[in-house]
Amino acid sequence: MTGWVTIVGLGPGNEDMVTPEVRAALAEATDVVGYIPYVARVTPRKGLTLHASDNRVEIDRSKHALGMAQSGRKVVVVSSGDPGVFAMAAAVLEAVEHGDVTWRNLDIRVLPGITAMLACAAAVGAPLGHDFCTINLSDNLKPWSLIEKRLRLAAEADFAMAFYNPRSKSRPEGFAKALDVLKEVCTPQQPIIFGRAISTPEQSIKVVPLKDATPDMADMRTMVIVGSSATRIIEREGMPLIYTPRSVVS
Amino acid sequence: MTGWVTIVGLGPGNEDMVTPEVRAALAEATDVVGYIPYVARVTPRKGLTLHASDNRVEIDRSKHALGMAQSGRKVVVVSSGDPGVFAMAAAVLEAVEHGDVTWRNLDIRVLPGITAMLACAAAVGAPLGHDFCTINLSDNLKPWSLIEKRLRLAAEADFAMAFYNPRSKSRPEGFAKALDVLKEVCTPQQPIIFGRAISTPEQSIKVVPLKDATPDMADMRTMVIVGSSATRIIEREGMPLIYTPRSVVS
Repeated sequence: MTGWVTIVGLGPGNEDMVTPEVRAALAEATDVVGYIPYVARVTPRKGLTLHASDNRVEIDRSKHALGMAQSGRKVVVVSSGDPGVFAMAAAVLEAVEHGDVTWRNLDIRVLPGITAMLACAAAVGAPLGHDFCTINLSDNLKPWSLIEKRLRLAAEADFAMAFYNPRSKSRPEGFAKALDVLKEVCTPQQPIIFGRAISTPEQSIKVVPLKDATPDMADMRTMVIVGSSATRIIEREGMPLIYTPRSVVS
Repeated sequence: MTGWVTIVGLGPGNEDMVTPEVRAALAEATDVVGYIPYVARVTPRKGLTLHASDNRVEIDRSKHALGMAQSGRKVVVVSSGDPGVFAMAAAVLEAVEHGDVTWRNLDIRVLPGITAMLACAAAVGAPLGHDFCTINLSDNLKPWSLIEKRLRLAAEADFAMAFYNPRSKSRPEGFAKALDVLKEVCTPQQPIIFGRAISTPEQSIKVVPLKDATPDMADMRTMVIVGSSATRIIEREGMPLIYTPRSVVS
């Protein structure tokens, strides 16, 4: 039996955002590996073993998946969103690079998914309709100094910005520092979008001018998008529409 | 009859990457509006009128869609990839902002799709697994000076970078200039990925060190991804795996 590892993205939560190719991989799998809440999104069936593990054990989980594939199992590693954006694809490949050399020639595939920033952007309009950058605000895996440097350069470039993992329980002060940097370098009226639990029944969205943003507006389930200086707000009944125009006038 | 406009992403080409919610919107539509090759991806059926138009008429197309929705039609505007990334969502909202004030209160929704950079990244591994930026290299709608400024700042921030529209027939020199900037500010070994016609039967992928990249490696169907200084290449039989680690050592 020839095993394989396929790392898939389940999208941000709405099951109607899961692509057919991801569904097909899940239908073929003998094993599903991932963080507890993501594995919980996979429907159990006969012949499928679910291996749910806690957060922050990404490398152990990856080694487990690769080892099972080597012994002939058909393994799907699940991420929420897209597996290539601050998720399991990089973790599995890190395990490949530093692991058993025979793992390199396993059948390893990555199937994209709807990442949270694009679902959040769609929910309010098109704030990422022009050049943008995507930053993981967690300083779990990188020094704060690098995050701050990137924030300052991204603001100087006038990118729209999408932030993943803005605020953890264990290090809530990071997002407060990020807001301080942004308030210093961006204009006060640039809109900032807080999209919580996007595409799920608990979805909530708040939009405020950057000057009015406070750290408590984000938690670990929140996607944060900051408009560029060109981002527009179209007021109307209900929630405004927000977009960044395609053109920049020179 | 209550009309609506829903702007959807058809993904990069593989029909198995089209989400079920996008399929459902197409199934409900009375009219589909979009650029000729994207409308050609929609299966004709009774009761559905297809309105295909040429490139560079995005605002006219948007007005057409909004006008039809106002008269009670159920209109899907199709983009390839994700509609919020250099595609139709920003164009429709621009038409809303500057158009008939009653358009603001139409039922306007955006449904995300698999954007080309994430499909291209998945095809080679996880080169966007850490902080990255996304730049439209076309100088059709913005001055070259802004593109160059953003390239330099993004390189200084050591972002991985994804480039849309790297090279047009009418202005092929833009990508040559972009490569010159990158070669000046990045390290020569940073990998650059050229993903052409990603996820379609014509898909081809080339990976070279930045120092060996030449302008003819890209055309308008090519997605270009440049790794950061941390991006790793895992050599193996066949195409290497490429990923950007989740951690940065301080």
